[in-house]
Amino acid sequence: MDFSYSPKVVDLQKRLTGFMEEHIYPAEAVYHHEVAENRKAGNAWQPTKVMEELKAKAKAAGLWNLFLPESKFGAGLTNLEYAPLCEIMGRSHVAPEAFNCSAPDTGNMETLVRYATEEQQQRWLLPLLDGTIRSAFAMTEPAVASSDATNIEARIERDGDEYVINGRKWWTSGAPDPRCEILIFMGKTDPGHASRHRQQSMVLVPMKTPGVTMERALPVFGYDHAPHGHGEVSFDNVRVPVGNVLLGEGRGFEIAQGRLGPGRIHHCMRLIGVAERALELMCQRALGRVAFHRPVADQGVTRERIANARILIDQARFLVLNAAYMMDTVGNKVAQKEIAMIKVAAPSMACQVIDWAMQVHGGAGVSDDFPLAAAYAGARTLRFADGPDEVHRNQIGKMELARYMK
Amino acid sequence: MDFSYSPKVVDLQKRLTGFMEEHIYPAEAVYHHEVAENRKAGNAWQPTKVMEELKAKAKAAGLWNLFLPESKFGAGLTNLEYAPLCEIMGRSHVAPEAFNCSAPDTGNMETLVRYATEEQQQRWLLPLLDGTIRSAFAMTEPAVASSDATNIEARIERDGDEYVINGRKWWTSGAPDPRCEILIFMGKTDPGHASRHRQQSMVLVPMKTPGVTMERALPVFGYDHAPHGHGEVSFDNVRVPVGNVLLGEGRGFEIAQGRLGPGRIHHCMRLIGVAERALELMCQRALGRVAFHRPVADQGVTRERIANARILIDQARFLVLNAAYMMDTVGNKVAQKEIAMIKVAAPSMACQVIDWAMQVHGGAGVSDDFPLAAAYAGARTLRFADGPDEVHRNQIGKMELARYMK
Amino acid sequence: MDFSYSPKVVDLQKRLTGFMEEHIYPAEAVYHHEVAENRKAGNAWQPTKVMEELKAKAKAAGLWNLFLPESKFGAGLTNLEYAPLCEIMGRSHVAPEAFNCSAPDTGNMETLVRYATEEQQQRWLLPLLDGTIRSAFAMTEPAVASSDATNIEARIERDGDEYVINGRKWWTSGAPDPRCEILIFMGKTDPGHASRHRQQSMVLVPMKTPGVTMERALPVFGYDHAPHGHGEVSFDNVRVPVGNVLLGEGRGFEIAQGRLGPGRIHHCMRLIGVAERALELMCQRALGRVAFHRPVADQGVTRERIANARILIDQARFLVLNAAYMMDTVGNKVAQKEIAMIKVAAPSMACQVIDWAMQVHGGAGVSDDFPLAAAYAGARTLRFADGPDEVHRNQIGKMELARYMK
Amino acid sequence: MDFSYSPKVVDLQKRLTGFMEEHIYPAEAVYHHEVAENRKAGNAWQPTKVMEELKAKAKAAGLWNLFLPESKFGAGLTNLEYAPLCEIMGRSHVAPEAFNCSAPDTGNMETLVRYATEEQQQRWLLPLLDGTIRSAFAMTEPAVASSDATNIEARIERDGDEYVINGRKWWTSGAPDPRCEILIFMGKTDPGHASRHRQQSMVLVPMKTPGVTMERALPVFGYDHAPHGHGEVSFDNVRVPVGNVLLGEGRGFEIAQGRLGPGRIHHCMRLIGVAERALELMCQRALGRVAFHRPVADQGVTRERIANARILIDQARFLVLNAAYMMDTVGNKVAQKEIAMIKVAAPSMACQVIDWAMQVHGGAGVSDDFPLAAAYAGARTLRFADGPDEVHRNQIGKMELARYMK
Repeated sequence: MDFSYSPKVVDLQKRLTGFMEEHIYPAEAVYHHEVAENRKAGNAWQPTKVMEELKAKAKAAGLWNLFLPESKFGAGLTNLEYAPLCEIMGRSHVAPEAFNCSAPDTGNMETLVRYATEEQQQRWLLPLLDGTIRSAFAMTEPAVASSDATNIEARIERDGDEYVINGRKWWTSGAPDPRCEILIFMGKTDPGHASRHRQQSMVLVPMKTPGVTMERALPVFGYDHAPHGHGEVSFDNVRVPVGNVLLGEGRGFEIAQGRLGPGRIHHCMRLIGVAERALELMCQRALGRVAFHRPVADQGVTRERIANARILIDQARFLVLNAAYMMDTVGNKVAQKEIAMIKVAAPSMACQVIDWAMQVHGGAGVSDDFPLAAAYAGARTLRFADGPDEVHRNQIGKMELARYMK
Repeated sequence: MDFSYSPKVVDLQKRLTGFMEEHIYPAEAVYHHEVAENRKAGNAWQPTKVMEELKAKAKAAGLWNLFLPESKFGAGLTNLEYAPLCEIMGRSHVAPEAFNCSAPDTGNMETLVRYATEEQQQRWLLPLLDGTIRSAFAMTEPAVASSDATNIEARIERDGDEYVINGRKWWTSGAPDPRCEILIFMGKTDPGHASRHRQQSMVLVPMKTPGVTMERALPVFGYDHAPHGHGEVSFDNVRVPVGNVLLGEGRGFEIAQGRLGPGRIHHCMRLIGVAERALELMCQRALGRVAFHRPVADQGVTRERIANARILIDQARFLVLNAAYMMDTVGNKVAQKEIAMIKVAAPSMACQVIDWAMQVHGGAGVSDDFPLAAAYAGARTLRFADGPDEVHRNQIGKMELARYMK
Repeated sequence: MDFSYSPKVVDLQKRLTGFMEEHIYPAEAVYHHEVAENRKAGNAWQPTKVMEELKAKAKAAGLWNLFLPESKFGAGLTNLEYAPLCEIMGRSHVAPEAFNCSAPDTGNMETLVRYATEEQQQRWLLPLLDGTIRSAFAMTEPAVASSDATNIEARIERDGDEYVINGRKWWTSGAPDPRCEILIFMGKTDPGHASRHRQQSMVLVPMKTPGVTMERALPVFGYDHAPHGHGEVSFDNVRVPVGNVLLGEGRGFEIAQGRLGPGRIHHCMRLIGVAERALELMCQRALGRVAFHRPVADQGVTRERIANARILIDQARFLVLNAAYMMDTVGNKVAQKEIAMIKVAAPSMACQVIDWAMQVHGGAGVSDDFPLAAAYAGARTLRFADGPDEVHRNQIGKMELARYMK
Repeated sequence: MDFSYSPKVVDLQKRLTGFMEEHIYPAEAVYHHEVAENRKAGNAWQPTKVMEELKAKAKAAGLWNLFLPESKFGAGLTNLEYAPLCEIMGRSHVAPEAFNCSAPDTGNMETLVRYATEEQQQRWLLPLLDGTIRSAFAMTEPAVASSDATNIEARIERDGDEYVINGRKWWTSGAPDPRCEILIFMGKTDPGHASRHRQQSMVLVPMKTPGVTMERALPVFGYDHAPHGHGEVSFDNVRVPVGNVLLGEGRGFEIAQGRLGPGRIHHCMRLIGVAERALELMCQRALGRVAFHRPVADQGVTRERIANARILIDQARFLVLNAAYMMDTVGNKVAQKEIAMIKVAAPSMACQVIDWAMQVHGGAGVSDDFPLAAAYAGARTLRFADGPDEVHRNQIGKMELARYMK
């Protein structure tokens, strides 16, 4: 047992932190300003110059595509090695994309590395790895409780050597981005006869295929997150070649499961970074404001909140790092409970810490002068992403109880 | 002791509820659509047609200016009588303005009724009562912790028969509204010599006075609340006649205290209405969605949340009604603790109930398809309005402890 | 709507409070000392002299049997009138018995008033009303989850003109008291054929009937509560005349339901008294202790706890008083949800407030130098009494959801 | 970074767990029964036979004095190695003493190893290491808030070559045990002139020194914990040789600080063992009970509690293990914040988990049929031990804030 990061990780942390300080934090206001200007000029949904500059710098600094664990394309970091880097990137909403490490592209790239044909990789994976296009992932549906994946109603029907796709998806992250060229679509190929977890398939659908319509961007607590964000997308008799299926018909659930583990580590570690940033802002604000004749930082209630925040963050970090460690050593399957646990623990922790930080900021905390309200909206949303807390807690409870059943 | 509403209140509740069902709820989507269209057309900051129509209907229905307690202008309801009506209005963010019962106009009108000259009433109060203009209240400052009112830095300096006003205010509710014609400004007339609570004064400042600049609208989470909302306003050598002072120099703190009581009852009861609506949506969603082979409403965890929500709401309602009762019977001064208590209890309760409701809605809960995320943003903000929870809890604790000091 | 107590109630409150100050509080230490001396002498399970003296004084002061709502025997107070008196009695664990208002005797007396024959009332009710004997209530069983009353396994079988009773009960409050002469026993008369809620019956069983064995006293967090407390009682072929059945065979569930409402009001209001006493102790301790150069009462964290305690207590009181009001005005049946709600809210509130008070007391808080740890044990136990919180929340949730089902 | 225990630790865990299953768990009821019999026979304050047998077995199994880190006397385990063993011992209140690893003896032995003379070690340390005598630690005082160590009022005055000791201590763990022969006493040698943290000294006081009076055993909730437990002890002109001072006059605070780190690791890891046992009991109970037609384990609310318990326990364990790791690698001083954090986190976690477990057990949960209520009383008390949570949170908050002060 050893709670220290390896020298390799410490080095990457140092380089990433340096890059954050030199390039990322100063770019936050620039990014906001550019988007606001674009919005005023009539179109917020276009790539920003500042982000493209950041990407070039990150690439030049060798801090690019750090997420990809193995394979000829990747940085080759284990989950446990990559996790603390995710924490650093999580500190700024501008960071993940700058390092080409943002959702849903990372999960999509991993999926393409594993299951796409050489040709498909040429066409979609390489530009994604290069950061010149973006991608989306279409699974959740507005009409049903999608946390139960067997509820999915979208249809993928074979017609000769094509699939005909019909359905409506939402929370399709990345879809409204004008750079989004490809999406991974989950639907049922065999709703009638196959067993419940073999009915779903995943297929590659180029965004510009006829019948694909980006209906609207979905706001989150009033934020539209232009030029990226979540979309509602309709699919009306969309036709793609049968070769676009990933791994094979009926394997959709299996792929979804495989994506989950790393995706949760990334999300949860980024949330820890978010919470650390919130705590930092909270401390600075408390030190800088005077109320009733003394700094807010001198008030016992403030200190108590700060102490609790520190405890919550550190506890959550260890939980996530342990899950990463288990994924690396015993695999996603055995680490199922640990992966479910972080999904429950990290977003709630982040919401709580951010909320305390907002409170110390007074009205400024809910405005856009600080990144807190936006961070809260993001963390709160992750309490639903790939299933609400309730579903995960139910699973964890069942697994724990199973230990005592004969 | 009697927990039933009087026949007069029951009748008003019935009429209001009928109006809500017939006119307000159907208008919610219309209102959003109109604002969205205005935004697309380049200016979201203009009055909506639908709101003006609602106002005309409410006036015709005799459901207008219900807030004003006594005086020749008002409906003459006690706080205890008006409180349950506020709850009903709180159920829709479109409602309060439609009934001319929205903040900060109600507080401003009360202030004008009590402290303005006949002439000032003619000029500002009558159009406010008529709903043809709106008003703002400028107290909080970005540079200092304004929960401690003695921190206020804005200056009101006498120069002959004029006041010269300098300062910067934010969270000036109503300022960005193009209909806003008047604001009540709080600043220091005598920062040097007067005792700490006699340094502040309030003066009437017409919005179009030279030197008054609406710098920007302040978003709350991602909502700008156009065409109303909160503003940051700068005052640069703004000159108004000395007659514009309310009640007299050094009386600002006193007026602020007087506004507080009724304002809190209104805010808190509206939050109870908000929470009731959230619980209603939560139940409906839980009944309508199936996950893992049974309605979400059949899951024990859902029922537990609903039960806790019901308990929290009912408890908070009694607390607020009791505070209203005490204001009516023993006055704001004696009811100080009760008024502080509801300020702490109601917003937190509402945040919790809305959060549970969001969770049952999945992703839809944080989108704009339901009023939940916007309601959360509003309730969360009220944990700062006229002082963060921490300040009030400190006061309550002191008052409670004082009972045991010899 | 009126939040003031009636003059009649105010008068009784004054008299009760006076009696508490003059007689009850000073008797607490005397009572403990007497029980401790009895324990040292080898038998803690005997009546105390001090309690008998208190009873005589309360009787003389006309503060006796205040609980009994109507009938020739009772004080004739409504639930809403009696509730605030319960709060006062709840402030001292010595008080309820002193006023002949302690559980389970009050519930048993009410049951006897309503359902016992004239002869049975002569034999059992009159001495209970006189405070010369005590009684027990035997429903919960160790072998099954008794919160689901249909689980009950005890059998009451008719054999000629006798019932033969077999079973094992625990948490039979009052059974270990040497003054306990009668118990009300709940068991199944018809487990096979009757519908689920018509299988149970209640019968009167004198404690000294052959086959009744007080197996042991049940401690609660280490407290045995001698000379009263809870017992585990076995029934081995116990024979009583068929006339001992209350209301008739198959009516047990019905009687149990009828007892519940008033019993909950009493328990919950006593808990509010417990919480008020805890808050009082908390304030006094905080004022009297200095740590790190200032009184604990000057620390923001202490004040915050005190403020929250005040809010929680006042909210819970209104909730309980409203339930009492509804019981008086619309009846137990219609007030079912309100009665369930207080059962969930009051014990949790009391546990929380007492816990905060303990924390301010440091080690003294968990010792017997203050009544806090014992109060916690009592309040914690009430989270199970007549069904754990979970069962009630489930019911409340269902009732709330039912409002939205077509 | 590595989250696996070393082979050495895994081996010890296996041996300890085997011993627990074979000897400790079966001895729990035997121990209770023996104490109850002793109590009935008139004296619960005598050593039990079963414990002496367990000690002999543990010694024979080589599972003895595992706590002692270095030195010729000890097992030589690091904090990180010993911590997981503490967790196992914590699962049964009978275990720590059986392995000679119980407080306050472990802390006292460590102190004697470091600061006692060879002669004192011969006299007191060897029999303690052998388990033939026990010891106590007298620091907390009833009259002052002892969490602020500068409040301590006990006096140690030099008179020739003796110290004259006067004062009153309580929560002197181990004092009521008839085997207790020595106590470490903290008092002020120089209250007037020395700096605030140099006024205190620690001296060795044999229990049978004239003037030492064990006034009473202090119950925790209703448990007296005979034959061990906490005592209130008075010191009335107690005289000991000046050679009995540890480390030197004015070094008391320093020794106290040094004891703290390891002691907290032990306490916190035992609490994790307690919580694991509670969760185990909770699962078993939930699986074994049926309510409303299905096992309690099938109810979503139960599963949610179990899931949350699992998350809380695992998080707390990592936090404590990390603190142990830091103590081993960077020392107590640098690990100050981490050591404070576990003191706040672990007891609250344990209270919460035990409380949930009690709730699933219904009335049985607060009785002595399960170890839950006693475990709760113990965990709750640890929220005060060596300072209430509030003091530690304040410290943590200050340390966190200090990072942002220039």
